[in-house]
Amino acid sequence: MPTDFRGSALRVEEHLRALARCSASPSGITRLYLTPEHRAANGLVSGWMQEAGLEPRVDETGTVIGRREGSDPSLPPILLGSHIDTVVNAGAYDGCLGVACAVEAARVLAREGATLRHPLEVAGFGEEEGVRFGVTFLGSRGIAGTWTPDLYEAKDREGVSVRSAMRSFGLDPDAVPRAAHRIAAYFEFHIEQGPNLAASGVPFGIVAGIAAAKRFRVTFTGKTGHAGMTPMAGRRDALCAASEFVLEAEEEAKRIGRGAVATVGDLVVTPGVTNCIPEAVTLTLDARAGTDEDLEELLSRLFDRSRASAARRSVALERDCYYSSKAVACSEALKEILRSSVREMGFEPPEMFSMAGHDAAAIGEKYPVAMAFVRDAGIGHSPKEHCDAEDVARTVELTVRAVRAADAILP
Amino acid sequence: MPTDFRGSALRVEEHLRALARCSASPSGITRLYLTPEHRAANGLVSGWMQEAGLEPRVDETGTVIGRREGSDPSLPPILLGSHIDTVVNAGAYDGCLGVACAVEAARVLAREGATLRHPLEVAGFGEEEGVRFGVTFLGSRGIAGTWTPDLYEAKDREGVSVRSAMRSFGLDPDAVPRAAHRIAAYFEFHIEQGPNLAASGVPFGIVAGIAAAKRFRVTFTGKTGHAGMTPMAGRRDALCAASEFVLEAEEEAKRIGRGAVATVGDLVVTPGVTNCIPEAVTLTLDARAGTDEDLEELLSRLFDRSRASAARRSVALERDCYYSSKAVACSEALKEILRSSVREMGFEPPEMFSMAGHDAAAIGEKYPVAMAFVRDAGIGHSPKEHCDAEDVARTVELTVRAVRAADAILP
Repeated sequence: MPTDFRGSALRVEEHLRALARCSASPSGITRLYLTPEHRAANGLVSGWMQEAGLEPRVDETGTVIGRREGSDPSLPPILLGSHIDTVVNAGAYDGCLGVACAVEAARVLAREGATLRHPLEVAGFGEEEGVRFGVTFLGSRGIAGTWTPDLYEAKDREGVSVRSAMRSFGLDPDAVPRAAHRIAAYFEFHIEQGPNLAASGVPFGIVAGIAAAKRFRVTFTGKTGHAGMTPMAGRRDALCAASEFVLEAEEEAKRIGRGAVATVGDLVVTPGVTNCIPEAVTLTLDARAGTDEDLEELLSRLFDRSRASAARRSVALERDCYYSSKAVACSEALKEILRSSVREMGFEPPEMFSMAGHDAAAIGEKYPVAMAFVRDAGIGHSPKEHCDAEDVARTVELTVRAVRAADAILP
Repeated sequence: MPTDFRGSALRVEEHLRALARCSASPSGITRLYLTPEHRAANGLVSGWMQEAGLEPRVDETGTVIGRREGSDPSLPPILLGSHIDTVVNAGAYDGCLGVACAVEAARVLAREGATLRHPLEVAGFGEEEGVRFGVTFLGSRGIAGTWTPDLYEAKDREGVSVRSAMRSFGLDPDAVPRAAHRIAAYFEFHIEQGPNLAASGVPFGIVAGIAAAKRFRVTFTGKTGHAGMTPMAGRRDALCAASEFVLEAEEEAKRIGRGAVATVGDLVVTPGVTNCIPEAVTLTLDARAGTDEDLEELLSRLFDRSRASAARRSVALERDCYYSSKAVACSEALKEILRSSVREMGFEPPEMFSMAGHDAAAIGEKYPVAMAFVRDAGIGHSPKEHCDAEDVARTVELTVRAVRAADAILP
């Protein structure tokens, strides 16, 4: 009986719907790291894993991992995975699509009676988004063995540290190093969260690498005053300076091109009163580029300009870089496996940078990784996320093909 | 014994310190309309009034009014006043300086045994700032007799209506029309809340009129998306559109000149997340000009430009004008009284528009009004408000002079 990937798609979609119900809010999906929702999601995924012939466990950072042994006990596993934590008011596909398709691929391989040399592992990571603790890739860094001591001290909005949240979740923070293990190859399948694939008419894109990214908190400090009685001429309006920055960030990202992006996602005005000139503005800048060099050029031009613009207004500018990740290249050998597999399915996949961070970036610091983007509705981090059932079926098929090819080719 | 206005200044400053302690917050001053703090302030001011030979009462809108009868029972009163409500985290001088100096002037006149033909009234108004209910001049509109039915339904952040808050304060909402009474003249002395007098070296400015003012809530609606994966080219970033608006408002106010001002005081981003493109921005625009014509020109040019700018970004712009007041001219006769009095004190006062709304604007719709600005630290709506003791003394003296002159000249 040939594998019915349409049936796989139905199962994956049902799993995504069930996972969507593990949410802190009754409407929308909000599932943060080390919360009761996270525990419920781990339980759900463990159940699917068992049905798919994988032995599930929750590792030392809260990652749910299912494993099937291979025929050669000396080989490290082929790891499939993505994350099951979400942003606030998330869509159902971000991260979860890759996890559900990987479990389904394991099920297909088991049902087909495939014998793999390598062990097969599927992981559903936590705190990829960095929404609860402001730090990212905690699950995948656990497996890569790249946790740093500061991660334990990161705190959520209520002041709860990662260390303390781990304990409440039933995890031993001191055991985190035991989560690390050798990996033969890591594949991740993730929605594009962008419009490029939909526009080009192909279901998959091969990720060339994961972009360099930096995040800043930028504060502009001017002088408040009565909105009626302070003449325009002498004003030191922090919001006018911040508005110039927003537009300069946009211009400089466009000037660099090559996929570079810069976004001011949040901006808070103090005192924030109708009839008071803004005294201070704090905003966030998120900047990304395909190479470390492009990112540095973007940022140095932007801050040179904005420092000059703010100075003209006698407004002070302070910046604090609170997140920085270098560009990570994907493995040429694993990319070739994905490219050949997509071609066998009848499509010519474009190669593209991932401007978003992914667990593959954390694992890619230590082991060979590859990633494919899946065509979606062009939007990410939104309840409007969507993949057509046909593309879900193709994702399961691509996962199966990639595992078979990697198992055959890898040493 | 000649009047010692230095002693008056000490008393006024003591009164302002006492009033500052009637605050919802232990640090800073926050005293909103019809709150326990307002009641405490009314009690305090009533006490001063009694010491100053005025008969105090709280009128039907919560305004504390003290009255001393004149020699001619057929004449309407000369009214002195300003407001005793504050913004959030206010300074000690805004409004309160005028009230405390007016009470002190009444005390001086009583001590000197001055016989006035007109009754003398001093009022401490509530909800001039419009901070609690978003509507302004409730106390002075009460005296002018210009309350409209919608004012009763205005609500605070907790959803409490003016009507219901009046009842809790012990007032009968249906009795508001009884607050209205005829007035011979209204004088208001108020800190400038701006740097012009300090720069010109004179303690007083004569207010030519109170500016036309409009306030808008402006909403920009674009499209969110992942900050990494959405190319710059196709973005519909609501914050970029809003930033253009902020800068266009600044430019158009400067272009009009003649004291026109435009301020975006608050701006809120949705969803307001570091790695999401802003979907929507809501901001407030406060625009003022010396004449209705200047204000209309400023606003029509600004919204023409911003509609075009937003359209280029496929961002929708909606505006809602929630406050509008026409320019109010001060009485030429009363202005002349103030001007002569200031000249007698040895200063040549400049004439200037008030870009801020004041109770004088509400009373000026029905009765002759005049206003002088008092030199301050150049800042309003801030704990940094300040007047030198010498200028406080001069304000009391000017008030005394103005009352005497008006009593002599008015029919």
